[in-house]
Amino acid sequence: MRLSRKPTSRRFFELFSEIGSNIAASVDVLREFVRAPDERRAELAERLHELEHVGDRATHAIIEHLDRSFVTPFDREDIYRLAVRLDDVVDDIDAAVDLTMLYRVDVLPEGVDAQVELLSRAAQLTAEALPRLADPQGLTDYWVEINSLENEADKAYRRLLSRLYDGRLEALEVMKLKEIVDQLEAAADAFEHVADVVRTIAVKES
Amino acid sequence: MRLSRKPTSRRFFELFSEIGSNIAASVDVLREFVRAPDERRAELAERLHELEHVGDRATHAIIEHLDRSFVTPFDREDIYRLAVRLDDVVDDIDAAVDLTMLYRVDVLPEGVDAQVELLSRAAQLTAEALPRLADPQGLTDYWVEINSLENEADKAYRRLLSRLYDGRLEALEVMKLKEIVDQLEAAADAFEHVADVVRTIAVKES
Amino acid sequence: MRLSRKPTSRRFFELFSEIGSNIAASVDVLREFVRAPDERRAELAERLHELEHVGDRATHAIIEHLDRSFVTPFDREDIYRLAVRLDDVVDDIDAAVDLTMLYRVDVLPEGVDAQVELLSRAAQLTAEALPRLADPQGLTDYWVEINSLENEADKAYRRLLSRLYDGRLEALEVMKLKEIVDQLEAAADAFEHVADVVRTIAVKES
Repeated sequence: MRLSRKPTSRRFFELFSEIGSNIAASVDVLREFVRAPDERRAELAERLHELEHVGDRATHAIIEHLDRSFVTPFDREDIYRLAVRLDDVVDDIDAAVDLTMLYRVDVLPEGVDAQVELLSRAAQLTAEALPRLADPQGLTDYWVEINSLENEADKAYRRLLSRLYDGRLEALEVMKLKEIVDQLEAAADAFEHVADVVRTIAVKES
Repeated sequence: MRLSRKPTSRRFFELFSEIGSNIAASVDVLREFVRAPDERRAELAERLHELEHVGDRATHAIIEHLDRSFVTPFDREDIYRLAVRLDDVVDDIDAAVDLTMLYRVDVLPEGVDAQVELLSRAAQLTAEALPRLADPQGLTDYWVEINSLENEADKAYRRLLSRLYDGRLEALEVMKLKEIVDQLEAAADAFEHVADVVRTIAVKES
Repeated sequence: MRLSRKPTSRRFFELFSEIGSNIAASVDVLREFVRAPDERRAELAERLHELEHVGDRATHAIIEHLDRSFVTPFDREDIYRLAVRLDDVVDDIDAAVDLTMLYRVDVLPEGVDAQVELLSRAAQLTAEALPRLADPQGLTDYWVEINSLENEADKAYRRLLSRLYDGRLEALEVMKLKEIVDQLEAAADAFEHVADVVRTIAVKES
């Protein structure tokens, strides 16, 4: 069913902006979580879980809006792909927090702070970029910066691993911690995949 | 070379249906495999391997048919992508079984049963959906259910890991088992990627 | 800004050819690296790092050329995707070498040689295919061979893992080595993803 025409596009941009803000809010909770004392973590994990549901609903709203829209600001498959990739970001963050609770990890590895700082900057860049989606070619800086953040995240991740393997911790403990750290690294990758879809949209229009 | 026209589309749907049945058959063998006593496993691994070859041939038949077809029911790249993604499912299952044999694992971790049950439901949904590909927009339920199964699979996977890390097994043993469990988790993801291609097709047509 | 027209396409093919040669050169350095005595490794790691920068620059040159080109030999998004996927290959190889240095690994696991041999053949095939991109349908053999190499690489990888887990090494040591081996396996996958984009281009034109 194709109902609306013009105001349609504005609705897409609104929904993507909401998702951007929701991602920034999720990374804020993650940041609090990794610094929080043990007794506050359950509450923060719960809050993150709620934000994940908010994100899910916005993702579905975009897809439903896509099904009902006659005119779309970009190729339909790119809108769909962008929505799915954005959803991955919060899923990965939620998984990292979930594993920390499941494994009853008290002390996260040194270096997680640096990972989360990079995620925080990526989240801010993404939240600022999404409201400007109507002009994808104006987002070159965003794309370049996300790529350079992802490079930094890769390096931070490898340095973290090499400390994790230095022999102070038992192998099973290392494996658990690595699982958490891997999810944070996946979140950094997810931000890059989002930027790649945005870049694809820009490239098509150039 | 573009030879045929109309009956072309029907052939694509037939081939995709065959692949769907083949995936369902593969997951059935996997299910038997994880419950089977040690001495029956080699035979089941062999059977799965044959099904993997059947799938490979059907995948190549689709790609060749694509090269020869003038008219296609969907965008050519989506047919190609769907064929490739479907191929991944059986590859992942085959890898899990292969590793179990290679590592001479006797007892798979508690929780693998639950993983395989979820794969089994995903396989059924996929096998039912593929013969209905001609109406991709009628497949919303399929896509929603696969996504919710994948969420369940994620949770089952994390619970399984947390049991695996509880200190009863030695680290090297845990690593081997995790490798197998990771391949099954990859198969769950692969079903979701298939559903995503189907959804992309639907979205383009909406 | 769309400036040029005809000579545009030739420039794309030149840049992709350069990237292909750069990948082949990178795998040559990797090959030397895994056989080199400890004291030569830092220098080879450095050389690989420089090749990675050369690749980055060529990737950016393609994307900039894309932004400025009115006529493109293939769909704009496929050119973009191919550039990004090619970039992944050298990134993965660089990561494997980087981890080897970071972890101060002296002896790489038996079987890494076989992995690197397969990467070397994939690099040669890719470097030969890219100058022939103007006729993507003539590249069926390339695609078939890369897929079969990737299958071999999967098997070599699993055999390598099963030796790695055989109990001779300590768990932490195994984890480090696996990290390196995983990056090489990722490079094999990356070659397949490149071939998939090439195949998508061919499929669209068929």
